[in-house]
Amino acid sequence: MIRPLVWEKGRLLILDQTLLPHRERFLVCRTPDDVARAIRELRVRGAPLIGIAAAYGIALAGDAIDRAAALLISARPTAVNLAAAVRRVAAVGPRRILVEARRIHAEDAAMCAAIGRHGAKLVPPGARILTICNTGALATGGIGTAYAIIKRARNVTVYACETRPVWQGARLTLYEFAKDRIPAYLIADGAAAATMREKKIDLVVTGADRIARNGDTANKIGTYALALAARAHRIPFYVAAPRSTFDFSIADGRRIPIEERAEAEVLTAAPRGARAYNPAFDVTPARLITAFVTDAGVFPKPPPPAAGKVR
Amino acid sequence: MIRPLVWEKGRLLILDQTLLPHRERFLVCRTPDDVARAIRELRVRGAPLIGIAAAYGIALAGDAIDRAAALLISARPTAVNLAAAVRRVAAVGPRRILVEARRIHAEDAAMCAAIGRHGAKLVPPGARILTICNTGALATGGIGTAYAIIKRARNVTVYACETRPVWQGARLTLYEFAKDRIPAYLIADGAAAATMREKKIDLVVTGADRIARNGDTANKIGTYALALAARAHRIPFYVAAPRSTFDFSIADGRRIPIEERAEAEVLTAAPRGARAYNPAFDVTPARLITAFVTDAGVFPKPPPPAAGKVR
Repeated sequence: MIRPLVWEKGRLLILDQTLLPHRERFLVCRTPDDVARAIRELRVRGAPLIGIAAAYGIALAGDAIDRAAALLISARPTAVNLAAAVRRVAAVGPRRILVEARRIHAEDAAMCAAIGRHGAKLVPPGARILTICNTGALATGGIGTAYAIIKRARNVTVYACETRPVWQGARLTLYEFAKDRIPAYLIADGAAAATMREKKIDLVVTGADRIARNGDTANKIGTYALALAARAHRIPFYVAAPRSTFDFSIADGRRIPIEERAEAEVLTAAPRGARAYNPAFDVTPARLITAFVTDAGVFPKPPPPAAGKVR
Repeated sequence: MIRPLVWEKGRLLILDQTLLPHRERFLVCRTPDDVARAIRELRVRGAPLIGIAAAYGIALAGDAIDRAAALLISARPTAVNLAAAVRRVAAVGPRRILVEARRIHAEDAAMCAAIGRHGAKLVPPGARILTICNTGALATGGIGTAYAIIKRARNVTVYACETRPVWQGARLTLYEFAKDRIPAYLIADGAAAATMREKKIDLVVTGADRIARNGDTANKIGTYALALAARAHRIPFYVAAPRSTFDFSIADGRRIPIEERAEAEVLTAAPRGARAYNPAFDVTPARLITAFVTDAGVFPKPPPPAAGKVR
């Protein structure tokens, strides 16, 4: 089992995902600043996982909890899990922060397992599944979200989008599929629509970074295009996410802040001086989403908030 | 003006496009085999341009015209221009081959100019245009197809898909835009649908590798996804191509041979041992195409074959 975060001797060890798949190296984080930098630089990524990392980051804050909370929350804007986890641990009082961070971590693992269990029932044996980005153990505190469904289904073949510009599909998802011995083919992001037609894809499943009250879903750039193509081919399009990814304070997708990242991420192969437009996420309207696969079950619309839970 | 092919002293000089944008180096081709290899390895690419290169390749064949024709035609299967140009020069008799190759080259330049002239009328001043792959001077014998329209329009801003896996957008189109001082932003292929929405794209224009009698159009992988997204956003979707790209012998897109290229092209960032599915082209159904911009004008359906033209 891949462990992307390890709390050890009062420090947070973060598996540096920018070096995968070729090198497995842990960064040692001793301060909230170390953790915030690792989140900003995508050394740790995935909506649930950056929430967990940031919760541990607060446990490194000593007395400066408010400053650490502000710093960590500002590291990335789109995934709601980050701010929610930070606020939750910051509210429990200094002595219980680490316990609460570990609890968030364990809860996320349990939610991943539940998502896998519920979602696997939607997948016919032998299905051909298309996915994007990385939603597995490298993105969560457990076995993943969309990835958990793929992992729990029987006998599937996966087509994974390489997910430019940061290659989370090529670098991370293919690495996880290899470890789990799940048959997978990498495709160029532009090949997804043609692959749906040519390979008779049975379903598309993705993760999410923030889901508004009406079901509009922010996720990795490219997800919206997949949802449009899935609709054109009458292929079910599922979003898999723990209830911590739903943001009931936001009415619809227009209010979700979309992170624009450095142009250089896209300019890998371009001539010097070229410009780029680099939104890291897009918003898929709820009407294109067949169902949400959550830890509480499968819902055609976002499920109500869990009773008594602040997060 | 970029000159991707130069006939000089009985040899064909091919600008090696795999080295762009960083190095401008010419390959010297002395035999049809040299030219076929350059085509297979994408050192020269673009549907019209590989036709022209192959025509010059026949001029290098000496007496072995039939063998050279078979070799060159088999270099790449999807673009119809290749086989058509080879057959045309092979039919004129040994002494007139070079004259005929030069004529194809000049005709293509004239068709590009006409496409630009006709297409520019479709573009409102100040338009935001989205395109894919490379369709400019590096893809044709003149100023391009889709690119010619952009070049002839007034005051436009372009969003160019990077066009994985071979980066023709990032490496070649951005290089041409820089030379022509046309404002352009590179986007990840997955960002195209979101860009249509967020940047209020006015029109999409692409080239083509082969257009069937009913208008189904094979073009660079990713084009079909753009057409689906354009339709969802009610954005006009234009295909720009000379009449040499229309294949009236094929009823519809299902009969167009789609080249699958080496998995390694997609596996740039993937772990060792990973697999990929790498179709180089996809087929956009005619119903998603607003109009065809050809050297003979703008047509909602493929125009009839030019009178008296074999090619």
